[in-house]
Amino acid sequence: MPDAVLIDGVLSDSACLDERALQFGDGLFETVAVVDQQPCLWEAHMQRLARGCHQLHLPLPDVAQLRKETEELCAGTVRGVMKLYWTAGRSVRGYRRPQPLRPQRMLRLSEWPVRQPKPWHLRLCTHRVGDQPVLAGIKHLNRLDQVIARAEWQDDAVDEGVMQGLDGRIVSGTMSNLFLQTGEQLITPSLDRAGVAGVVRELVIELAAADGYRIDIRDVTLKDLRQADALYMSNALIGVERVARFEDVGYDLGMAEHPVVAQTRAVCHRPDVVSGGSL
Amino acid sequence: MPDAVLIDGVLSDSACLDERALQFGDGLFETVAVVDQQPCLWEAHMQRLARGCHQLHLPLPDVAQLRKETEELCAGTVRGVMKLYWTAGRSVRGYRRPQPLRPQRMLRLSEWPVRQPKPWHLRLCTHRVGDQPVLAGIKHLNRLDQVIARAEWQDDAVDEGVMQGLDGRIVSGTMSNLFLQTGEQLITPSLDRAGVAGVVRELVIELAAADGYRIDIRDVTLKDLRQADALYMSNALIGVERVARFEDVGYDLGMAEHPVVAQTRAVCHRPDVVSGGSL
Repeated sequence: MPDAVLIDGVLSDSACLDERALQFGDGLFETVAVVDQQPCLWEAHMQRLARGCHQLHLPLPDVAQLRKETEELCAGTVRGVMKLYWTAGRSVRGYRRPQPLRPQRMLRLSEWPVRQPKPWHLRLCTHRVGDQPVLAGIKHLNRLDQVIARAEWQDDAVDEGVMQGLDGRIVSGTMSNLFLQTGEQLITPSLDRAGVAGVVRELVIELAAADGYRIDIRDVTLKDLRQADALYMSNALIGVERVARFEDVGYDLGMAEHPVVAQTRAVCHRPDVVSGGSL
Repeated sequence: MPDAVLIDGVLSDSACLDERALQFGDGLFETVAVVDQQPCLWEAHMQRLARGCHQLHLPLPDVAQLRKETEELCAGTVRGVMKLYWTAGRSVRGYRRPQPLRPQRMLRLSEWPVRQPKPWHLRLCTHRVGDQPVLAGIKHLNRLDQVIARAEWQDDAVDEGVMQGLDGRIVSGTMSNLFLQTGEQLITPSLDRAGVAGVVRELVIELAAADGYRIDIRDVTLKDLRQADALYMSNALIGVERVARFEDVGYDLGMAEHPVVAQTRAVCHRPDVVSGGSL
């Protein structure tokens, strides 16, 4: 299946060179799992997109229109990945945005990555993610930190790299969020200075709260990682994966998985589940 | 004059949606003044591009080819602006770069902005530029900090905004570098955590050294800005502009301009001047 792309509702595969996403990374994106012709965790994706618009001072998208075009693009797709862009649109050279701003929406449907679920092997990235509280948490198009970190390894036996912030605190994986388990407690790094607040991360937090489990969002150190009973990584495509190894530390895969993790995995790829505060 | 664009040597105006510059801002750019069909400060632009390739782990461009295409694009242009992109090229979804990487070169020629030289009025931006030593100094395509800062004002009487780093130190303008003059001494902020090492900034530093003037590259505070005898802003298009006002502080425009500033202005738009260590 070749990728299919809708730009502002029209089948196309190219953007103008004056698109601000290309000039400056001036925009946002969402990576959405598509199952049975429907996007998963749609409300959570739309909520994060809205937070991004607020932080970048972009107009909000027409969510009903995005949903309609998503369903049009995903018709007939049993399993796929849709990348949705909401950009600042076209403009002449220069950082100044045009008035009025005309955002562009771009939907790209790709094949589901063939990857069998299995416990992950992690490495520690040398490259540290930069500090910028204003951009932390949202999924904007300035992703050089993640690109540089991902370029550190070619070994396919390594599934993901763990990134520290400039001060050494653990932030996330290059493309996933991170959870530590100690006893029954779950911990995930706070994303106050860097990182992306993943939709599955939000789902874990939501489910834990609903079930009365303690989940701490706080500073996490390398030592915390090494001493945890179990680690988990999450994103919209993998759902949640357990970690077998981080550098020289192996985790006991015989230990039962945290109930919230199992519950998250069971619902995150079910398009009939409505996330975003209404579970 | 409509913009003219060469992508990998071919006249075109569109990029594929899988271009990594659009997906992640995975690439570099240069904004080059074109005078009498020739690019100005070419060697300095190419040197900064090379530093950027080193920092982003991108292959180096074929500079002779870039120059040839630049002259082809700029034939007949008395005065213009050429934006040159050197990107990580196309790839499937995901931060991982393809092997082999095939960078794309994009040259875009636009009209010279009609702007009369005049002392600038500056404001202080509320948005602070993020910290990332690895990306500091180079001209990469992740420019949301500058876009957000530039969106703070619409008043055409304000020419530029001054940006602080997260710790409050002065970094630069949104699109220009900054020089302070105190007596005969010139000072420019160090760019160890943020900012772009401008080609005209490099020229000022080079000329000052050649002429035996003291130039300090160091931490600069808001107080330093307010107490300076004179301020100057520089970039490849404006060359150097004097500052009339920064917020509520006016500077004495009757004071003679620093000799190095005058010298920089005299050579920065002369395409026959070879910069980059060989002046």
